Amino acid sequence: DYVLVFYQRKQISVRGSDRLHRLSAPPHPPHRLSVCVDLAVEVELEADPAEGEMVLIREEFEARLLEAGLEMERDTEVRVYGPSFTRLHVPWQVLSREAEFLKIKIPTKKSYDLKQENGFSASLSEFWRKVNQPFQPNIPQLGHSTTKQLSHYAPTPHHTPHQAPRHALRHATPHAMPHAPHHAPHQLLHDEWARYGAFYKYQPVDLIRKYFGEKIGLYFAWLGVYTQLLIPASMVGIIVFCYGCYTVDMDVPSLEMCDKQQNFTMCPLCDGVCDYWHLSTACGTARASHLFDNPATVFFAIFMSLWVATFLEHWKRRQISLNHSWDLTGLEEEEDHPRPKYETVLLQKRQMMRNKEKKNEKKKKKKKKIETGVEKLTWRDRLPGYLINISSILFMFGLTFSAVFGVIVYRIVVSALMAMSPDPETKSNVRVTVTATAVIINLVVILILDEIYGAVAVWLTELEIPRTESNFEQHLILKAFLLKFMNAYAPIFYVAFFKGRFAGRPGDYVYVFNDYRMEECAPGGCLIELCIQLSIIMVGKQLIQNNVFEIGIPKLKKLIRAWKGKGISLEEREEQRARPPQQWNLDYTLVPFEGLTPEYMEMIIQFGFVSLFVASFPLAPLFALLNNVIEIRLDAKKFVTELRRPDAVQAKDIGIWYNILSGMGKFSVIINAFVISFTSDFIPRLVYQYMYSQTGTMHGFIDHTLSHFNVSNFRPGNAPTSSYLPETTVCRYKDYREPPWSAEAYQFSKTYWAVLAARLAFVILFQNLVMFLSLLVAWVIPDVPKNISEQLKREKTLLVDVFLREEKEKFHLLQSLFSSKDQRGSDTSVVATWSLNAVISHPCRLGVLFLKQCDDGTY
Amino acid sequence: DYVLVFYQRKQISVRGSDRLHRLSAPPHPPHRLSVCVDLAVEVELEADPAEGEMVLIREEFEARLLEAGLEMERDTEVRVYGPSFTRLHVPWQVLSREAEFLKIKIPTKKSYDLKQENGFSASLSEFWRKVNQPFQPNIPQLGHSTTKQLSHYAPTPHHTPHQAPRHALRHATPHAMPHAPHHAPHQLLHDEWARYGAFYKYQPVDLIRKYFGEKIGLYFAWLGVYTQLLIPASMVGIIVFCYGCYTVDMDVPSLEMCDKQQNFTMCPLCDGVCDYWHLSTACGTARASHLFDNPATVFFAIFMSLWVATFLEHWKRRQISLNHSWDLTGLEEEEDHPRPKYETVLLQKRQMMRNKEKKNEKKKKKKKKIETGVEKLTWRDRLPGYLINISSILFMFGLTFSAVFGVIVYRIVVSALMAMSPDPETKSNVRVTVTATAVIINLVVILILDEIYGAVAVWLTELEIPRTESNFEQHLILKAFLLKFMNAYAPIFYVAFFKGRFAGRPGDYVYVFNDYRMEECAPGGCLIELCIQLSIIMVGKQLIQNNVFEIGIPKLKKLIRAWKGKGISLEEREEQRARPPQQWNLDYTLVPFEGLTPEYMEMIIQFGFVSLFVASFPLAPLFALLNNVIEIRLDAKKFVTELRRPDAVQAKDIGIWYNILSGMGKFSVIINAFVISFTSDFIPRLVYQYMYSQTGTMHGFIDHTLSHFNVSNFRPGNAPTSSYLPETTVCRYKDYREPPWSAEAYQFSKTYWAVLAARLAFVILFQNLVMFLSLLVAWVIPDVPKNISEQLKREKTLLVDVFLREEKEKFHLLQSLFSSKDQRGSDTSVVATWSLNAVISHPCRLGVLFLKQCDDGTY
Repeated sequence: DYVLVFYQRKQISVRGSDRLHRLSAPPHPPHRLSVCVDLAVEVELEADPAEGEMVLIREEFEARLLEAGLEMERDTEVRVYGPSFTRLHVPWQVLSREAEFLKIKIPTKKSYDLKQENGFSASLSEFWRKVNQPFQPNIPQLGHSTTKQLSHYAPTPHHTPHQAPRHALRHATPHAMPHAPHHAPHQLLHDEWARYGAFYKYQPVDLIRKYFGEKIGLYFAWLGVYTQLLIPASMVGIIVFCYGCYTVDMDVPSLEMCDKQQNFTMCPLCDGVCDYWHLSTACGTARASHLFDNPATVFFAIFMSLWVATFLEHWKRRQISLNHSWDLTGLEEEEDHPRPKYETVLLQKRQMMRNKEKKNEKKKKKKKKIETGVEKLTWRDRLPGYLINISSILFMFGLTFSAVFGVIVYRIVVSALMAMSPDPETKSNVRVTVTATAVIINLVVILILDEIYGAVAVWLTELEIPRTESNFEQHLILKAFLLKFMNAYAPIFYVAFFKGRFAGRPGDYVYVFNDYRMEECAPGGCLIELCIQLSIIMVGKQLIQNNVFEIGIPKLKKLIRAWKGKGISLEEREEQRARPPQQWNLDYTLVPFEGLTPEYMEMIIQFGFVSLFVASFPLAPLFALLNNVIEIRLDAKKFVTELRRPDAVQAKDIGIWYNILSGMGKFSVIINAFVISFTSDFIPRLVYQYMYSQTGTMHGFIDHTLSHFNVSNFRPGNAPTSSYLPETTVCRYKDYREPPWSAEAYQFSKTYWAVLAARLAFVILFQNLVMFLSLLVAWVIPDVPKNISEQLKREKTLLVDVFLREEKEKFHLLQSLFSSKDQRGSDTSVVATWSLNAVISHPCRLGVLFLKQCDDGTY
Repeated sequence: DYVLVFYQRKQISVRGSDRLHRLSAPPHPPHRLSVCVDLAVEVELEADPAEGEMVLIREEFEARLLEAGLEMERDTEVRVYGPSFTRLHVPWQVLSREAEFLKIKIPTKKSYDLKQENGFSASLSEFWRKVNQPFQPNIPQLGHSTTKQLSHYAPTPHHTPHQAPRHALRHATPHAMPHAPHHAPHQLLHDEWARYGAFYKYQPVDLIRKYFGEKIGLYFAWLGVYTQLLIPASMVGIIVFCYGCYTVDMDVPSLEMCDKQQNFTMCPLCDGVCDYWHLSTACGTARASHLFDNPATVFFAIFMSLWVATFLEHWKRRQISLNHSWDLTGLEEEEDHPRPKYETVLLQKRQMMRNKEKKNEKKKKKKKKIETGVEKLTWRDRLPGYLINISSILFMFGLTFSAVFGVIVYRIVVSALMAMSPDPETKSNVRVTVTATAVIINLVVILILDEIYGAVAVWLTELEIPRTESNFEQHLILKAFLLKFMNAYAPIFYVAFFKGRFAGRPGDYVYVFNDYRMEECAPGGCLIELCIQLSIIMVGKQLIQNNVFEIGIPKLKKLIRAWKGKGISLEEREEQRARPPQQWNLDYTLVPFEGLTPEYMEMIIQFGFVSLFVASFPLAPLFALLNNVIEIRLDAKKFVTELRRPDAVQAKDIGIWYNILSGMGKFSVIINAFVISFTSDFIPRLVYQYMYSQTGTMHGFIDHTLSHFNVSNFRPGNAPTSSYLPETTVCRYKDYREPPWSAEAYQFSKTYWAVLAARLAFVILFQNLVMFLSLLVAWVIPDVPKNISEQLKREKTLLVDVFLREEKEKFHLLQSLFSSKDQRGSDTSVVATWSLNAVISHPCRLGVLFLKQCDDGTY
């Protein structure tokens, strides 16, 4: 049943929006059909009508509910202010009617045996079941069932209590949402799902769906599939990482870099104050680089792209399985009703048009074609909204980029200052310190902007005045995704593809603000920096968002709410003590549910870390896995204990999120191709080994990647002012340029172009290979699992059988009825035969609509 | 109705397969429901049973038909040999029952007005209608209808005569195909569709579907959409070509090539016999190249990629429109029954297993688990088939490649021989002659192999023993496509990407067979050769296939058939003269229908020419358009007059062909990217203009692309033996290599690597840009046309209204019935109320299945 809350403000004279708040309620009136539906309704009247109108509106609303066939029970005592509760009861007939309109499927009594495997496969699946046993949640009815019930469209409140009443209430008011806590399920979910101790178990998805509805059920099912598939990905990631660790001592280039005998004198990294330095001092980063920058990474990037394809296919299959077992296969997406906001604006527009017309008529007195029916809002009405949208989004893009640029400037300035410091200890730690602090600043900026963008996206979407709730959700998701994605990934993109590429060369460095050199990557390659950036942002974001935003803030809100509740008078408190609060009073203190968008968004951004830049950070899946194992239980706890019970919404799929996932999967292929070929040293090594190396080994690679610079070519003032290597005549720098003794000194060398061509060729090869393999994976894995398609076939034939039998029974029944009548010799026999005929020749599912057609012989 | 043909051989003693041939028949028995269905059945009994069995099988077959409710009418006279005809009649009840099983939708009496546009859009659509008027075929009922009838699942033979009886016959025998010529439609199709004079008109698709069924209707609809969309593509193609013609006199590189003052002395093209030559002699090919190799081509390649995306989206929309207007929206794909071939093999396997088991039992006398039910063929049974498949396909790939290689050898040898000829006339025409003859050889080989591969694909697919007819079709299509695609495109791929790339350089040419140099492209670039190759193969293939294979061979077959029919005795001829032949005798002489696969295949291969290499030949869409305009009428003529009427097969879409089309669309993006960047001179020109040109113009480009060769570097015997330019010390050749005076003489130069990098970068840019734009196009164009989705919504609400009204009527009817009975005080009142309740609370579409459940209160 439902409970309406009507909140009457204390200060009656203050004009404000009266709100009917929603909460859940537990009364179980004994019911003719033993229906156990408990429902709650939230009604928000968005307009700001005057006080008098409010009462009228409330009365009209209640009248329409009664008209729709609902029964009502008010609070016995009338309270002047504060929340007052009205309990609604939806009778069986109304539920049936509405369920029929919604084409809700229910199980029939007829059940059939699922196909039993035999022989080897049976024992295999039995073994699998036993291995899985400890991971299964302790839900009584979720046993190893061998039968399934046939389902067909028909009303029953036991399995689908959510949608039907919602529809009924919608006929009365645009904003009514039903609610139905089952108490047993709630306790079971609490014990078997919403606790950290159960982290290793499967989720009781069917139970979640039963209690929270299909939409939330699908979210948790999706999260489960994602987390489960992260296990193999993180295992392969660990193996790749271990391979890096294992081979670090065999890697010729990093050995050469650390080799103090091959002591390359490197050019100073800045003008004047910086000195020449030895490459062997960068030995550490070179070794660290090798952990992530080795041939196994290329394999891992291909593996992860295929993993994404597999994940998407696997989810499709799971979705279809769930649709089947939740009886959603035939469900048609219901047309959403317009949002109240939209209707208000439309009303205003109509009013305005009417006013204009009146004026026009007065002025011109001409008979013009009067368009009375303003059916919908056109793009003209939305133009201001769109303009604000576009400019805001552009502004926020600018904000994101300036934040990134700000951090770059911070890095440049601080490293320049630290390099000038006389303390050698400071100097040696420059890179680590600067990188770490800069990333942390990045992280903080990202977290703050993330919250701001989330709120701005909602505001912007409201400005667009979308017609329906699903439109609203889609626009919001796209906007929020765009903003948050840019925000989270802009610094990472910078490090991956732009850092160090505009630094110039010794003697011709690029300067920003006239004074500071553009930053370069470490001698080990940009990949290690990308890796640090990725890991800190990913782990930091998840830790902070989980702890602060998902645990801290809800608790804070609850505290504030409780604190506000203290503002009631002493008498009331006394009164409260006298009567223990009803369940609905308790539920009223919980936080309202605000949609799944933030939950999905968090996961999608994480999915980006796992897919987009995985070539540079093979441990990303592992971190994602660890986070998600916690995340599932955290979300579960939130849903079970901290939120008011959300509206059960029917859904067949995860909607636009699937498209976003698949888009990211496609994008990740090209990003990974570029990371491997441009950020990592994979291609230069290959080119050296097969084009330039004399011995066919990597020996001499470091020498090959370093260009020569004649110190006499320094412009005045740019050479190191004081050096402990004063005898240096030629220093080295990392680039492929012509040596000073060449005719085209310091131009890009032939090797540069050859390596560039190789890099680009690799991108083409990688992209097309992976795209082809992904298509192959998607093609090989069928969308509909085999057992489901078999079951569907069997169900179809069984249904036909059942219908035919029913038809026969009906025929016999009616025959006996009519025969008894015919004995009497009634003159209604013509009608009787007519009706009999009709019922016989048309099984009920085909409808009586065709009675006449078949009979009048024109067809 | 149906006609069975039982062909009894004259020589009764000869053991052979008796066949029941199919043909169509026109008898119109006056029918209770005025159903006008004429049907024909073909039954092929694949096994070779003995003569006695044959009669038994025929009798059993007929008995099963009678059992299924069909009525039968035999020829009055019994003939000993030759075809004998049995006419079948399917009663209304059988039709109804089968249509119900198939969930066939029919229009109801209830119709509704389509939404009328008003204001500007109405007059616009009126204008559009008038402009289109002359292009509409003259079909009476195909007017501008403003109403549509509501449809729902129910049987009516008027709209769906094809499927229902087919299903009925299938219960009796695995190979029964129905048939239904309407005579009026046939005449209309003949006059308004199957003639060349109507080439500019739309096709009467609804009528085609009515007469030939959905599958063939969809083929012609698809062909129509494809042809229609070729119009804009060919117009843009013509514009691009005209741009090339217009700018040919302004193109600096070709002007420089033709400029006799800039007289580059080119190195000889072969050793010894060849002389130095002047570049200006290649002026013609350079100018011709420019027609196809200009910046507009890049634009055209992008345009055509988007065109492919648009075409696919447009077809999706059209398909959904057709599904809607043909009432196929709810149609579920029917499970195909196993093919007779499959069942035969299965039967043999079972027999073998049983024999083995018996032996085993005798030998071992042990009780083993006996698997009596061999349910299906496993991969083990198919292994020989698969092995033959793989080896044959590999062999045919080899065949194709050797054909291509053979033509290459022909070209090399002939051009070497002709170059040695003393006649200067011969020498100058070498390239044109050799190219043209080689392409014609290619064409002939392609045409011959095409026919062979088509037959081999069928044979190979039979070896695989696919379970169902649709499996068979899919496997066949994939195999045939693979083979024919390779066959048609292998020489084109060679010219586009391999020709001239392994030719070596002067002084170090690559030789095949020790004696002959690898061939090079013309100095104007390979693009012009690709263009010639493409146009000749495309146009030639289409002309020859249309004329010889689609017109000639059917006529020949008909002739042979008629000639065979002459072998009847004199008496019979007399008899025939006495009785004019029935319609079925005439139809029996027509060619049987052999599926749509060859028709689709031809179009798909053509689609490849239009999409895959369109960057090199902008006129391809035009040639395709001209061909298709004829092709439609040719196919129409064939279907209407030359083939026995094909089985009407229901289909919602064009099946696997769509996937092939979309795959080719994807493939075309990368192919075009490579053609533009590697085959054309677009990238080298860009690189020259922006990296090397002193003036920023194209002047000096030809000089830049030619490398230097010192004639003293010729190996002994390789230099021209007699030359009319004896003073030459340095000759030029087209490549980017270091000059003789460089330290790395004849190595690839820096420019080579820079150009290569630019080419590869262009491929990446082009591919990703076009893929992104294609995705955008697919996303912007909604799959379901707006008016269709609106109509669907309206239909849904209307259907609900109609059902509710019907329900009410029924309620009243039953109430009156029961009330009259209640007055009598019958003791069946409990049953009566029960039944009444049931009918009231459940609209018929929900089925009576739930009566008990609702009543016993557990749900």
